Amino acid sequence: MVAKMDSEEKLIERVRRRFPFSAPWLPVGIGDDAAVLRPGRGADWVVTTDAFLENVHFLRKIQPAESVGYKALARATSDIAAMGARPRCFFITVGLPDALSGKWLNGFLDGMARAARRFGLTLAGGDTTKYSSFIASLTVMGETKRGRAILRSGAQPGDLLCVSGTLGEAELGLRLIQRRRHWQKRWAEILNKQFYPEPRLALGKWLAAHRLASSMIDTSDGLSTDLGHICAASGVGAIVRTAKLPAVRIPNELQRLGLGARDLALNGGEDYELLFTVPKKLAARLPRHVGGVPITVIGEVVREKKIRVLDENGKLTDLRAGGWDPFLKK
Amino acid sequence: MVAKMDSEEKLIERVRRRFPFSAPWLPVGIGDDAAVLRPGRGADWVVTTDAFLENVHFLRKIQPAESVGYKALARATSDIAAMGARPRCFFITVGLPDALSGKWLNGFLDGMARAARRFGLTLAGGDTTKYSSFIASLTVMGETKRGRAILRSGAQPGDLLCVSGTLGEAELGLRLIQRRRHWQKRWAEILNKQFYPEPRLALGKWLAAHRLASSMIDTSDGLSTDLGHICAASGVGAIVRTAKLPAVRIPNELQRLGLGARDLALNGGEDYELLFTVPKKLAARLPRHVGGVPITVIGEVVREKKIRVLDENGKLTDLRAGGWDPFLKK
Repeated sequence: MVAKMDSEEKLIERVRRRFPFSAPWLPVGIGDDAAVLRPGRGADWVVTTDAFLENVHFLRKIQPAESVGYKALARATSDIAAMGARPRCFFITVGLPDALSGKWLNGFLDGMARAARRFGLTLAGGDTTKYSSFIASLTVMGETKRGRAILRSGAQPGDLLCVSGTLGEAELGLRLIQRRRHWQKRWAEILNKQFYPEPRLALGKWLAAHRLASSMIDTSDGLSTDLGHICAASGVGAIVRTAKLPAVRIPNELQRLGLGARDLALNGGEDYELLFTVPKKLAARLPRHVGGVPITVIGEVVREKKIRVLDENGKLTDLRAGGWDPFLKK
Repeated sequence: MVAKMDSEEKLIERVRRRFPFSAPWLPVGIGDDAAVLRPGRGADWVVTTDAFLENVHFLRKIQPAESVGYKALARATSDIAAMGARPRCFFITVGLPDALSGKWLNGFLDGMARAARRFGLTLAGGDTTKYSSFIASLTVMGETKRGRAILRSGAQPGDLLCVSGTLGEAELGLRLIQRRRHWQKRWAEILNKQFYPEPRLALGKWLAAHRLASSMIDTSDGLSTDLGHICAASGVGAIVRTAKLPAVRIPNELQRLGLGARDLALNGGEDYELLFTVPKKLAARLPRHVGGVPITVIGEVVREKKIRVLDENGKLTDLRAGGWDPFLKK
């Protein structure tokens, strides 16, 4: 079924209607050759960019259009959270097949508009083209006080290793999809984390405002891989205590799928939690929750440049990066 | 032939090597969750985003890999020129098939690195994914003095309508390709404008610095379409004098292809010249060239919201937008 295709102008109108904007720091938004941003005094801007492609990042037959729009923006915005910044505006380039330009696109835009409102993001520009499959690329910008962005590179030996929320939930949702269980209503809550991830914006900003985190990343690829990024950037190693991991609880009915909660927590991608390090002397100032999101100390940073897990029996083993790499098959 | 695929990290290293950076306004570039930009006092930032897709924007069998990389960045940077801004940094998301990850990708990156050096752009971040076809999305950022960006919306009745360079050259190159003449060496110069367009950065900055242009756009879609954008945004009309058009010269040997220089100049896309308006009282300050690029007055802005051409015989006819629209077939 091929929907009648709008002209580019009409398409832009359909987009614009869903994303009203007005912001003093955005004198020019959609509709000119480029957007114009007016940074405040003493502000740094953080910028991240992220592709979201049919058959790589989502399966159109399985994932609702609203979720595709929501998640595309949520995962890019998670990088803003991981810098401790406040989201400001975003840009989107879209390649769109004829057949998706009607109802599907409306769903996609509705989901994205909901995410934008939730995260405090203004659509500032974009580019649309006809294409054989659905492809999108998001650029998201946020603002911090000057010099306050939290980088991957500040972890020091002795720092506590902390993570927000629960690990492995999004991967559990993915496994349900792969086993074609996603249509069963009772797993809706599990799928929710896979379809509608929640960037930890309040926590990120809180950590930046209180200068508590020495380094930070979001767990987009999986703990084992993302911890590797922090350690590489900081020139340190880490020990993760498996007993402390806030791992997903696997429902009894799913036990026979042979999934290990520990494996999901260590290697599952797309949780978009914050993984950060806190200097030991500041540990007392670390609350158990920020804005309802639990914080768990899962280990510590060490001098030796190895990433290891310490299990319940006191056994240390090397942790291999087992998360998502778009260019490697597991 | 399928080349062995690098891990994402190795791929990023290959990219990074070609784009060395160091800039005081970019405390954090590639390698963290997001780049950190430190805007100068009294600066506005302009941001534009642009897709560049195999089989839509380029044909891989015909266009050299270097040109694909060069042109992808050049056309996005042309939007920065059209705001009168100075290019600063760019971000790229790439989807890449296995088979292109070797020599072809090197060519692409070399072409893009050449463009980046030429335009003064620093690579500040990006995202890479495996994909079935080659797709890229560019985000380019530039800087202007506060309030000095030249918008589409400032044209006033009575303003002179001006254009840089020659119109229709890129389209002539495209027609040669469509007619499979592109391999003939003697047309190399014509193809050059199609393969290696030159954003008019010096002219754009000059116009912004001298506050001469009341509105501006780059001719990416073709004069008739791009002039429509200026008129719509400014709430005005325009008259184009065909006798004044700096139209491409069609070589004698190509006359029998049945191409009209006037049609190419009015409707041909991808010239990436600057189309701008100048208040009549400032006309005397408009030079004939800026940085070697000729400027031609081709008409004027009028109150009546119509776009018309005035031909050599004094006949006025409506000008239909005949340029490129990614969602309409001509």
